[in-house]
Amino acid sequence: MHEIRTGFGDILKRQLELAERNYEFLADRGVRAINVMGAIGSGKTALIIQMAQRLQGKGVRVGAIAGDVAGDDDYRRFQAAGLPSTVINTGDDCHLDAHRVGHALEEFPLSAVDVLFIENVGNLVCPADFPLGTDQDLVVISVTEGEDMVRKHPKMFAQTDVIAINKVDLAEIVGVDPQRIVEDYRKVNPHGRAVLTDAKSGRGVEELLSALGF
Amino acid sequence: MHEIRTGFGDILKRQLELAERNYEFLADRGVRAINVMGAIGSGKTALIIQMAQRLQGKGVRVGAIAGDVAGDDDYRRFQAAGLPSTVINTGDDCHLDAHRVGHALEEFPLSAVDVLFIENVGNLVCPADFPLGTDQDLVVISVTEGEDMVRKHPKMFAQTDVIAINKVDLAEIVGVDPQRIVEDYRKVNPHGRAVLTDAKSGRGVEELLSALGF
Repeated sequence: MHEIRTGFGDILKRQLELAERNYEFLADRGVRAINVMGAIGSGKTALIIQMAQRLQGKGVRVGAIAGDVAGDDDYRRFQAAGLPSTVINTGDDCHLDAHRVGHALEEFPLSAVDVLFIENVGNLVCPADFPLGTDQDLVVISVTEGEDMVRKHPKMFAQTDVIAINKVDLAEIVGVDPQRIVEDYRKVNPHGRAVLTDAKSGRGVEELLSALGF
Repeated sequence: MHEIRTGFGDILKRQLELAERNYEFLADRGVRAINVMGAIGSGKTALIIQMAQRLQGKGVRVGAIAGDVAGDDDYRRFQAAGLPSTVINTGDDCHLDAHRVGHALEEFPLSAVDVLFIENVGNLVCPADFPLGTDQDLVVISVTEGEDMVRKHPKMFAQTDVIAINKVDLAEIVGVDPQRIVEDYRKVNPHGRAVLTDAKSGRGVEELLSALGF
């Protein structure tokens, strides 16, 4: 599942090298990393905590990195959940990059984790172009964002093989049919897996872990 | 209210010149433009249509530009609402910029409108750094995105004097207190106006128009 994407051609060459270095750094330490992307408020943090708790129940040790432009809200949620964790504040940047993640990995207690969730900055555009050196990608969207998420961001969905359609408990209230999103996703990524989740209740979390190969 | 922001220093110099040109272009034609920013799915399109309908009722002619990475969903919604409109697809870019908007303005039937809403690409990070040459900015956030929106994007909120906190009808269901968002906003922008809205029912739309000076 190791695959380094290209986006801006030569401009990204240095980032690709750094991503490759992160990948090797994690592999040498036996850590499997997952780049969790999605719009702001889609439920990435809540879903990571749900997955972490279930994995911990199976004896898998889980850590998390919170990526945000500013603030430590998500980091504090990871801490409250008892996860080894850190925060990367990007300042003006709309995405994590391999350079920032590399520095965070150097400081992270990797010997204490088997799986590391790296929560990217909340938007569906920029993170698509910056590989971090993770083993897998996961995109989280919320039904509250509307039915047109995939149509508005085909690139992100075409290159991501597992997506969570979150907050499905609100689908009826907001008048969104999750199956429409699944159909759009299938068009751009016929082999991808779309899982309906509700991070608050835990619905779909086991299925999502299964889709990720756990 | 005309104010050109700086972000990346010299790198943005060309964009600032183009924004200035857009501002003059619009002013010469008597068109007041509003840059509507906010995360994907926050309800920008619905809120613009609500404002447009109320303004039209007062004899104000309204047009709209839909900015998206890909797709024409929002454009078709503007068309269905009977608004003179066009779409700008940015491809890989996470924001509109003055250059793209300038070309769109050249083609737009500006003689048919008094007010032009320019709906930016849906995210709360990148649009903050790219002035378009509009008279005003508006940021739309949704309570479904969580309580920490302002803390995660202080820059966007510090420089925007009117914000809409949308989907307040869902506040209780998602367990978010809009007043917490208002308090965070006051900290970074003491003179800003935060209006609670529900674009679906029209709640708060009149107050939002008043906050924008209509």
